Amino acid sequence: MNDAALSSDQGAAGPLIPVLAVVGVGLIGGSFAAALRSAGQVGVVLGAGRNPQSLARARELGLIDEVVSLEEAAARADLILLATPVGGLADALSRMRAHLRAGAVLTDAGSTKAEVAAAARAALGERAAQFVPGHPIAGAERTGPEAAQADLYRDRIVILTPLPGNSAASVDLVRRAWLACGSQVIDMDADAHDRLLASVSHLPHLLSAVYMNQVATAADAATRLDLAGSGFRDFTRIAAGSPEMWRDIFLSNRDAMLAELAEVRAVLDRAEHAIAAGDGAALSTLLETAARARRNWRKE
Amino acid sequence: MNDAALSSDQGAAGPLIPVLAVVGVGLIGGSFAAALRSAGQVGVVLGAGRNPQSLARARELGLIDEVVSLEEAAARADLILLATPVGGLADALSRMRAHLRAGAVLTDAGSTKAEVAAAARAALGERAAQFVPGHPIAGAERTGPEAAQADLYRDRIVILTPLPGNSAASVDLVRRAWLACGSQVIDMDADAHDRLLASVSHLPHLLSAVYMNQVATAADAATRLDLAGSGFRDFTRIAAGSPEMWRDIFLSNRDAMLAELAEVRAVLDRAEHAIAAGDGAALSTLLETAARARRNWRKE
Repeated sequence: MNDAALSSDQGAAGPLIPVLAVVGVGLIGGSFAAALRSAGQVGVVLGAGRNPQSLARARELGLIDEVVSLEEAAARADLILLATPVGGLADALSRMRAHLRAGAVLTDAGSTKAEVAAAARAALGERAAQFVPGHPIAGAERTGPEAAQADLYRDRIVILTPLPGNSAASVDLVRRAWLACGSQVIDMDADAHDRLLASVSHLPHLLSAVYMNQVATAADAATRLDLAGSGFRDFTRIAAGSPEMWRDIFLSNRDAMLAELAEVRAVLDRAEHAIAAGDGAALSTLLETAARARRNWRKE
Repeated sequence: MNDAALSSDQGAAGPLIPVLAVVGVGLIGGSFAAALRSAGQVGVVLGAGRNPQSLARARELGLIDEVVSLEEAAARADLILLATPVGGLADALSRMRAHLRAGAVLTDAGSTKAEVAAAARAALGERAAQFVPGHPIAGAERTGPEAAQADLYRDRIVILTPLPGNSAASVDLVRRAWLACGSQVIDMDADAHDRLLASVSHLPHLLSAVYMNQVATAADAATRLDLAGSGFRDFTRIAAGSPEMWRDIFLSNRDAMLAELAEVRAVLDRAEHAIAAGDGAALSTLLETAARARRNWRKE
């Protein structure tokens, strides 16, 4: 039992979240439930969503206790995590709106936040104050409830982008839930989040996929792929990610993507010019800046 | 003892290479020596090069038996591997030219081959027929003799780009040496090699470094780097590589780099247009092609 994560109004003996509902019990939603259960911070876990097989499997795995409708989840839960694709968020919120308990808090795990905030305002109206947008930055190479693990969020960053109408208590509940998962929680403006994630997450994915597409569609693709080594392996790993998910992210984060891409193109133009001109000094400067920054990066 | 790797004219009891010389005993040269020694295919290993500390360390580690001058290496060796940066190749060959044994075979491990072939012709003149250009495709994140390992080349591809004047016996000796290291050996035209490597090795490095440069020089670089996760980690790993080595590779392989970059830019333009236009179908097609190719790639 983690005292620091206990909500004081639950009393020392009760869990932070008596009833948790997870909409979409795959890797992201299932791991959230597993982490909170492992921390002793949930009572009952409800699962809802569009995929009955996934929900049944989540129940078999003990990630959730009951499979319920969206309406029942809304009527019973203290905290609701929407772990559906961004495209399905508005529909789920609309169905839950009329059933939400007055004290219920909703959050999500979507990769872009400005569009999520707009969708929440549109779908929830005056109840949008109960929705605290969030984004756990955790890998998602595997999918589905089988991939869920209680330590997925440990030592990972979770960004919250509170809406102006959110109460301090609502934001605090979401923050405590993620802290109980072992995460580090940061608050940020939604637009700032989207620009930062365009840079460090969405653009690498775009570049990796664009490059992989070019190799794969070359006339001699098979020969190229036979000769590709460990650098290629690492550089293209993210290109294997879900096309549907990344399409939605790119479209959802269009303006930030295009702005960041313009910046990267400016550096690419400089590098190309240096290669064409045989300008070794300019190339060295560019490569040294990159190599130094990468070597100094904290994670390796 | 690997019978298949034995040169028949050495007799069943002798090693394939009675005297091996390695010029530049770092990761690449040291691992070649270690692999051949481990396979029982070398007698004496001579080490030469510009870095006395590196040579002394290589001798302490047992990678080489003697430290010698370039001239002595030329005068004594049956096979000479030049594992120096491409920029230092011509000078080393010029110094060795007058001292080479008639039956000596030279090879290299450089990442580009058309320029190496030209440098060998210029530096060796009529003795260029003794030089068989080669390129082991093996990782080089670590450097120096300490990083050398006997299994670095096991199951890796080595590309040979023989010169028109090479004798079958010379090419065969180099091929047998790499086979004894556990490698798969492919013959190829130097220009074809350079185009293929521009695609699967040099361009990923350029894109990763360009991207990393843009992130590192942004006003909010520290915040970006704090939020970067596992996708960023993989995508940028190669950007940490040696700026000097990659500068030389890019300049040495300029034409192929620029041609491949134009192809990648064409796909990038399509992707950018699809994002700007909100064209989800076009984005999906592009991303699906990339994801399918990456998932089907043999190495993961």
